[in-house]
This record gives sequence, C-alpha cells and structure tokens, in this order.
Amino acid sequence: MNFCSQCGNPVTLRIPPGDNLPRHICVECATIHYQNPKIVVGAVAAWGDRVLLCRRAIEPRHGYWTLPAGFMENGESTADAAARETLEEACARIEIDALFSVLSIPHISQVHMLYRGRLIEQSFAPGEESLEVALFAEADIPWDQLAFRTISRTLKLYFEDRRKGRFEIHGGEVIPPP
Amino acid sequence: MNFCSQCGNPVTLRIPPGDNLPRHICVECATIHYQNPKIVVGAVAAWGDRVLLCRRAIEPRHGYWTLPAGFMENGESTADAAARETLEEACARIEIDALFSVLSIPHISQVHMLYRGRLIEQSFAPGEESLEVALFAEADIPWDQLAFRTISRTLKLYFEDRRKGRFEIHGGEVIPPP
Repeated sequence: MNFCSQCGNPVTLRIPPGDNLPRHICVECATIHYQNPKIVVGAVAAWGDRVLLCRRAIEPRHGYWTLPAGFMENGESTADAAARETLEEACARIEIDALFSVLSIPHISQVHMLYRGRLIEQSFAPGEESLEVALFAEADIPWDQLAFRTISRTLKLYFEDRRKGRFEIHGGEVIPPP
Repeated sequence: MNFCSQCGNPVTLRIPPGDNLPRHICVECATIHYQNPKIVVGAVAAWGDRVLLCRRAIEPRHGYWTLPAGFMENGESTADAAARETLEEACARIEIDALFSVLSIPHISQVHMLYRGRLIEQSFAPGEESLEVALFAEADIPWDQLAFRTISRTLKLYFEDRRKGRFEIHGGEVIPPP
C-alpha cells in the first residue's frame, strides 16, 4: 500500500496512538488503513461415499485437485459462502451439514474454513475456475495431486472421522514448508 | 474506496472479466481491489465457574460488557489471536481449550469466532480498551448490559453446554435488528 484509498495522498507506515502495530496512515487525511486476514470457505460435498473434487483452471496450483472453495465475500455468511463456492466451481447444489475444519495459515494471513455437505442431486460440471469436476471414493483420492495442505488435511480428517462414525470440528494451523 | 492504494489514481467500480461482482479497479494500473469480511476473535476465559468480562472503554458500545475480543491481525492464527486479545483487553493470560462459536454477521461483513479457555492464574486488569474487568458467575452476568449479540449468544450457549456437561462448537448467523 502506497496511497490512501480515501483521498489519494501518500501513506506512511507508523504505529497509531493506543495501538502496538505499524499501520498505513494517510499523511493528509489521517485515515488508518488496517490490513486483516482473509477467509477462504469451501465444502466437502458428499454423494454417497464419494466426495466432490475440482481440478484447478487457475493459478496458484493450476491443474491440481482441490475441494470447491474460495474467498468469502462481504455480505454473506460462512455457510452461504461454502454453498456459493461449490455452485460456482463445480456447478453443484449442496445442503450444508456442519462446519468441519478451521485452519489458520499465519504466513499468508488466511483462515480456511471447510464445511461438510451433501450434493442435492448427482449433477455437477466444471465452473469457470475448474478444468474438471469429479466424485472420488477415499481409495481414489489423488493425494499427491492435491492443491493445498489445508485441503489434504481436511480430507484425511474427514475420512478418519467417517470411519469412526462421528464427525468433529477440527482446528489447527499450517506452518510454512521448511 | 476512491483511489488506488498501489498507484494513487482513481478507481472505478465494475465487474472484472470472469467475475460476477463489482470490484474497485484502478483506471491506470488495473489493480483489482477486493474487499472481504473481517474476523473478530475472542475468548470465554473461565476461572472456576466464573468467566471474564470486560467493560468497553471505546466505541461502539462504550460502557457495555463484552468478552475479550478484537480484530484478528495478519500473521497470526485464530487461537493465538484469541489469547492475544485476552491479554490486551484484560491483561490476562489464558490456555486455549477449543473453538466454541463461529457466528457470521453478513450485514457488517464480519465473522466472530470465540474460543473456550481458562485463566492460567487469577490475575487480570483493564487494558487500554477496557474500563474494568471482572469475573462473573452465570447468575451475575449483566445480560442487558452486554455489548453485542454475538457475545450474549455465545455466553448463553456456553452456560447451556456447561450444564449438559459437554461443549460443542456452535455456528450461526446474526441478522440485523428489525
């Protein structure tokens, strides 16, 4: 950030009174521009014993498989965002069951929240950001072709919980690779 | 948003190719400025059968009681943010147990996430943003003096679960008052 989004004058980086972190502050109108983590929301959408994966048509991780997920928008709930992303990326309508994983990724300032849900009908297709969309049984998950660590961790926990016959909610943190 | 934070030129509001929502886009450098919901994180910090509340020294809701909570910062996890906010607002160190409530507030584009935790020692004091800090038994909670609906809903669910002897994680949505 170089300029104030309110008035267009330059910003400077300093700690405001009563704060303890440096913020971008406008030298002219004194607006403080806070920067905060972003929420990525998605779904493990089941049809019978299979789950829906999308192969990414966009960077990062073009060509790799992921759960339908994306940035939460202003004006929506996390559950609605999960259903919307599934519709956009996989053209699939789902019923949301419950929140399943909440994983922080501090080094990129994101929080990934994945819901459990069920396809309303066996109908799906690649959206604009997907190359292909398919249902996978646990044995067929392309583990070494998954796009993100939050996705592989969520899928592993999902199948573990399913075997136990009881779904929990899983929190955690993803640290940068060495 | 009126100006590009990258180059200082004016922005215009339009739907980028492949998107379906209007975004602020720089007329000069074409940077797309996304705006996304913010995460507020806090804690129900217990000491025996009492929980820690802070009376707000800042607007909004100056003078009303709340759980220690605030905006998550870049570079931290949600659990670390809950512990940091409790330290900043109540000068209290806590051990985090588990995520407890995840409440979306679409009309102000926020997601409130409250953790369950325990004070490490019976030591607390008002931080810069608090007028006073105190431990409250369930019977003494100032229900009509609570600052936010996510706080009263979280506290109600907390005491209900405690009576049942089993804490769950609660999702939900807060809609605007009529």
